[in-house]
This record gives sequence, C-alpha cells and structure tokens, in this order.
Amino acid sequence: MSTETVPARGSKVLISAGDLRALTAGIFEARGVGSADAAAVADALVWANLRGVDSHGVSRVPRYLELFDKGQSVPDAVVTVERPRAAIAIVDAHAVPGPVAMNRGADEAVAAARDCGVGWASVRGTVHTGAIGYYTSRVAAAGMAAVGVVAGMPNMAYAGARGAAVATSPLSVAVPAGRHELVLLDMATAVMALGRIAQLKAAGTELPPGAAVTADGDPTTDPALAAVPLPVGGAKGSGMSLVFELLASALVANPIVPGYHAGSKEGRRHRQNGFILAVDVSAFLPLEEFTATVDATVDAIKALPPSAEAAEVLVPGERGRRCEAERRRAGVPVGPRPWRELTALAEALGVPVPAPLGG
Amino acid sequence: MSTETVPARGSKVLISAGDLRALTAGIFEARGVGSADAAAVADALVWANLRGVDSHGVSRVPRYLELFDKGQSVPDAVVTVERPRAAIAIVDAHAVPGPVAMNRGADEAVAAARDCGVGWASVRGTVHTGAIGYYTSRVAAAGMAAVGVVAGMPNMAYAGARGAAVATSPLSVAVPAGRHELVLLDMATAVMALGRIAQLKAAGTELPPGAAVTADGDPTTDPALAAVPLPVGGAKGSGMSLVFELLASALVANPIVPGYHAGSKEGRRHRQNGFILAVDVSAFLPLEEFTATVDATVDAIKALPPSAEAAEVLVPGERGRRCEAERRRAGVPVGPRPWRELTALAEALGVPVPAPLGG
Repeated sequence: MSTETVPARGSKVLISAGDLRALTAGIFEARGVGSADAAAVADALVWANLRGVDSHGVSRVPRYLELFDKGQSVPDAVVTVERPRAAIAIVDAHAVPGPVAMNRGADEAVAAARDCGVGWASVRGTVHTGAIGYYTSRVAAAGMAAVGVVAGMPNMAYAGARGAAVATSPLSVAVPAGRHELVLLDMATAVMALGRIAQLKAAGTELPPGAAVTADGDPTTDPALAAVPLPVGGAKGSGMSLVFELLASALVANPIVPGYHAGSKEGRRHRQNGFILAVDVSAFLPLEEFTATVDATVDAIKALPPSAEAAEVLVPGERGRRCEAERRRAGVPVGPRPWRELTALAEALGVPVPAPLGG
Repeated sequence: MSTETVPARGSKVLISAGDLRALTAGIFEARGVGSADAAAVADALVWANLRGVDSHGVSRVPRYLELFDKGQSVPDAVVTVERPRAAIAIVDAHAVPGPVAMNRGADEAVAAARDCGVGWASVRGTVHTGAIGYYTSRVAAAGMAAVGVVAGMPNMAYAGARGAAVATSPLSVAVPAGRHELVLLDMATAVMALGRIAQLKAAGTELPPGAAVTADGDPTTDPALAAVPLPVGGAKGSGMSLVFELLASALVANPIVPGYHAGSKEGRRHRQNGFILAVDVSAFLPLEEFTATVDATVDAIKALPPSAEAAEVLVPGERGRRCEAERRRAGVPVGPRPWRELTALAEALGVPVPAPLGG
C-alpha cells in the first residue's frame, strides 16, 4: 500500500467507481466468494455509494465478513430455485451474500413475467441485501415495471408498542421511462433510515421530531438518546412493515418476527427474506407507448410550481441519478473510517489497494 | 315512508346492515343498474360503513348518481376482460360503478393466480371504488394474499410542489390468517384521508400539524383553511402515489395525472384505475402452515408491551373488524345528512325505506 492511499484522519477519499468495485470484489473473492458472485456483490454495494446511499454501500463490507465469520452467511453457497407454478419462483439463498440471491430473484421474476405477464420471485434466507432499488432497477432495465420488498430483523417501533418490534423493511418500485430515466422509488418504512440516524448521532445533530424514541419508548430529538426509529405515518409505516414480513417471510416458511420476539438465539440470528415482482409492460401495451406516458407524467410533475422550501420539484430517483452522474465523473467519496477498514482488510487479504483520485 | 324514518335533525339513525344494503341496492336498481350489480355496489358501500370507514360508505350514493347524470359513470355498462397472457387480465370497466369492476378484477386475479401462482388484474376506467380493502378481502377469502391499489384524480400535495398534484391513492394488503381473522392493511398515501379532514372541518376541530396545507400551500391546522392534504412521510407518500398512478394508469393507457395538469375538460373528468395482485399461498406451502405462521406473527405483535398512549397493540384491520362485529349486532349508524339524502332519493325513485332500529 502506497502512502498516497492513507488520507489524513477525518477526511474523505475519492475513489473511482471502477477501482472501488475492484477493491470490494477482491476482498470478497479473497474471502471465498466466487469471482462472478464477488463482482455482483461489489457492483450492488458501489451502486448504493454512487446513488448517495452510503449507509448501504461499501461501508457494509466488514459486516458481511463478520457474518461469514459467524457462519450466518456462507461465501460460496449455491442458490437453488424452485418454480412450483409458471409465474412464481422460490429462490433459496442458503445464506449467500444478499446481492447474489436478489439478482437471481430479479432474473427469475423477469423470466416468469416474459412467459406469464407478471412474475413473482420470493427470496428466502438471504442476508443483508444492500439498497433494493438496485434489483428493481435491474428489472426495469429489461423493460418491465418492478416492485421489491425486503423483510429483516426487527429494528423499528410498531405503532402503539414499546421497543423494536418490526423492521424498517424497504419498498422499492421501478418504472421504466423514455426520454427521462426510470422512476425509482426506494423507501424505508421508517420516518428516517437507520443509517441517517447513525449519521446524525455521529455528528451530534438534533433529530427532527417524530423520527425516533429512546430505549424507554419516549419521543426524543436528542441524537445521543435516539434508540429506535419510528414508522412513517405511525400505524401506516408499521402496518406496511408487518404485511411485508408476512408476504416476504411467511410465504417461504422463514418467519422473522415471531422467533425474534420469542428471544431464542436462533430467532435472533441475522437473516432476511424478500420478493421481487416483475410486470412485463409489453404484455399490456407497446413499451414505447407506456414510456411516453411515463415521460408525460414526469413532465407534468416537474412542471408543478415548487413550494416555498423547494427550489425544484423532483421525481423519485432523480436525486440519486444526479448523484450517480456526479460520482461517476468525480469519484465516490468514502468516509475515513470505511476507507481505513477497507484498506486494512485488503492488506490483510493481499488485495491491491487502488490510489485515491487526485491522491 | 312512515314518520318513524324521519329522525330528529342532527341525530344519527341506526339501520340494520341488511336493510341498508337493500335500500342502497334498490336505489341503484331504480337508476338502471342490473340487479346483481346493484347488490354488489350496495355490499361494497355498506361494508365500508360496517368497518367504520363511513366516508366510503352509503354517504357516497348521491355522488354515484351524480356521475350517472353527468355521463361519467354508466349504470348498465358491461365490463370486458382481456387475458393477454396467462397471469394477467385487463378489466375494462367502461365506467360501470367501481365495485362491479373491482370485484371482477379481484376474481380475475384469483383465477390467474390459481393457474400461475400469482395473478394481476388491471382495472381500467372505473369510477369511485369505495374502500379497496373490500376487494383485497375478497381475494383473501379465496385463501390468497392480495395487494390492491387505486389511482384517482389529483387531490393531494406532492412533496416540494404547491397545490393538488397527485391522488391520495390507497394501498391495501390482505393476508389470510388462521385463528385470527385476516390481516388487512388499507391506507391512503395521505397523512389523513380526505373524508377525515372533512369531518374535522364540519366539526370545526383543529387538524394535527403536518396533515394539510392552505390553498396557497402554507401549513395549517385551521380546519377552515385546510385545502390540500399532505402526503404521508413527505416524498415517501407522494412518491408512492406517483408510482401507483404509473402502475395503475399508464399500464392501461389511461393516464390521469398529465391530463389533469394540462387542465382540459376531458383531463378533469372523474375516473380511476386500479390493480389487484393475488398470490396463491398454496403454490408456496400448505395454506394451514402459512396461516399458522401469520397467527404466530400476530400473536407476537399483540404481546408487545403497549406504549404509554396505547391501551393495546392492534394489527391492521383489527379495529375495523371490531367495529364490524358491533355494527352487525347493533346496526349501522347513518349520519343525518346521508340519511336524509338516501331517503329522499328512495322516495323519488319509489324504493321502500326501511325503519331505523329502535325507531
């Protein structure tokens, strides 16, 4: 490792997306993940960084490796697929790193949708999946609309209850467009994602009211006391999270919520389930006609008068797309701590560390 | 009409659910809706009253008839169905009253799911659909899980924009259970449904902060000034509404948002589109195994310690189910204004008016 790759403590380094992917893939490959799978995991994580969702990006690499160490994720697991009926697939991840299983889910959903008009792939027993917009975008790239959901370990409040009760389970919907790029909703069912709360905690910045409660369940804006994020819209957010758990987990006989609250060690073992629904637009109408309507709808929204606080009206995915364009051009900023962790892992594993841009 | 059916001005009357259905069906039949369709519309509206969602119940009857008068809804339209691929159906409502088209959508989704594991039915060009939990419940009664969405005329703010931009488009998810009754999420993408805001306006009760803005786009809690409801979670709620419009409307070439904002008369004509997704649980695992997991999950949630404000932890649909049990027993309360309107319509159309309970 050259001295150029050691930035001043506390400053971010800029790495090209390609170098960051190669570094990340190299680490996974060195830890026993097959070459294609390692590249897939790296691509999903770096995509999150490109889109500005740094909490779901390469900062998660140490956590993935920790799951390998604990036997909760299996580097070289082989995903298996059942197709019990024409429009559905059950993808069993066997604890392979999340992106490998979720990519397969997206591809199975697309294949089923080509045959049947819609396709549903359940992904069973995966681990951390990263940003699920990555998988719905993958479906959209095939000219289809997509819905994606992931259910995970309880870490969010449930309306009317104390403590962590359900997960901040995300919902993503991707819709292909024409002149515009795809409309991409990717939202947690919490008011504020855990990663964002962690950022405010680290910065000592006050939280907005209604975003979190203390360990005792009292509302707080104090970043030091915020322990449990609150669901968006109260019963709406926690209700969505609960039905997502039932659709993602109960359907594949791998429930998370009841075992977690039973408190057994097995019940608290990290795992996730998800599903991807693909809708083949061309079964309904010519794709160009559909994307022209999507464009017209986006145009109508963007032409609305902005509110007093907003400079511009944005559609879902637009902010992330701009961030991606900028970071593809200028490089991906990686925080000092994740950079130290990544480079230390790379050195220990004999993986070459790329030089930061402008380093 | 006997004098017993004229309640004191300002007081609610109690009507048995069966009598209210017969009265409502009679009015629709007298206005040219076929007997079976009239019964279907009445059942959907009275179901909303039974569940406590009075804003979507029989108080809407005059609005349905107004749509007939304007030619925006057609009492005896015949729904047509295409099945372009095995797992999808396109149900064209031809402006028949919403429940007739949405029931057909639910049934087509169930039929496709029996064949293919999942089934998707798009419902094109319907009018007011009532409470969409009715249709997802219909799917759940067939032992399937269901997702339902309806997109309608813009009446809600979009994050970052002024004025009514997108619809308060609802999302419903129904999941069959075993010992417990089904889990039934049925939520608007607005913080507070329009009907609830109207109730607070009528009562002169202050709105909670963050629920609505004035016609000028300024935040308000004054019921007299509240003009446009705000989306739940800001960009999350309006983002969901936008992608629901694309999935429900663009897919059937009947977009609502762009025409509405173009301001043409045709663009502002009342219409809705929706879709129902049915997931055949038995294609994944035995239904009893699934419903046992749903029961265990519901038990885990209900066993959580209640928060300081809550007496009890509820799952989605539980409040409505309790209301339904009580109203089936004691009768459905109908407000003085809807009751006057219903009885006046019934008299004008020669439909017998039932006696209120205990009248």
